[in-house]
Amino acid sequence: MRHILSVTVENEPGVLSRVAGLFSGRGFNIETLNVAPTLEEGVSRMTITTFGDEQIMEQIVKQLRKLITTIKVVDLTELKSIQREMCLVKVNAEGERRAEILRIVDIFRCKVVDVSVDELILEVTGDAGKIAALLQLLQRFGVKEITRAGMLAMKRSMQE
Amino acid sequence: MRHILSVTVENEPGVLSRVAGLFSGRGFNIETLNVAPTLEEGVSRMTITTFGDEQIMEQIVKQLRKLITTIKVVDLTELKSIQREMCLVKVNAEGERRAEILRIVDIFRCKVVDVSVDELILEVTGDAGKIAALLQLLQRFGVKEITRAGMLAMKRSMQE
Repeated sequence: MRHILSVTVENEPGVLSRVAGLFSGRGFNIETLNVAPTLEEGVSRMTITTFGDEQIMEQIVKQLRKLITTIKVVDLTELKSIQREMCLVKVNAEGERRAEILRIVDIFRCKVVDVSVDELILEVTGDAGKIAALLQLLQRFGVKEITRAGMLAMKRSMQE
Repeated sequence: MRHILSVTVENEPGVLSRVAGLFSGRGFNIETLNVAPTLEEGVSRMTITTFGDEQIMEQIVKQLRKLITTIKVVDLTELKSIQREMCLVKVNAEGERRAEILRIVDIFRCKVVDVSVDELILEVTGDAGKIAALLQLLQRFGVKEITRAGMLAMKRSMQE
């Protein structure tokens, strides 16, 4: 089962390593991870997605809550949440291909963030399915490089 | 000085913890971090931003390259690169405020990703400065929650 955790922590050296260690110590592989500052000085927020057993996950959450640098842990797995990812894609765009790629850009509401003679860098945001579909469509032009952010998730305002 | 590293790794349990440990072991605080899969099965890519001394950074890069799970390390600090971040913002949007917020959404080319009676969730992408400006503008409506992805960076096609 896929789990999505949002963990608010004090941003000190070593915190990330300890958090990651809780997962790897139980054989859990972190699939995606984001860490970035919040509006509060010295406080960061992580979004972690991982696959694994429910019971072990509960143990990890308990251990996370015990770390003195942990401020808050929210398990978004069971809650209604918005889930967004971002990906940058460098794609071959020589000659006539360019117009065709730009049509795909429009349909997927991507942004072109860099242009050169023979390449484009595109920014796409959305759920994992949308990003996968775009990458598949671009494959035949030649995807040279991708880099993607982990999943960002936020509790929806209206829960049932 | 701010450093941006792009690190391609084999995605095994423990890799993240080891990488993070190299930074914390030298007192470096990771400012933002992204980890997500690449197009290649079992291979993930991390983007790490951190502040610190040049020489210690060089040592960390050397150590990173020595890890058997490391496939590639690119220091994007000195290269021309595209840098993008993504942020989700939950903002109070009751009554007349809503129209005003939607004008800001247009100007900043945000996407509204969730709507309820009294709140909106916005998605914004751009550089850190743009995101900071948006958050400042939204502050007076009441920002309830933010979650942001770390920086994504990609080498520009044209280097000088």
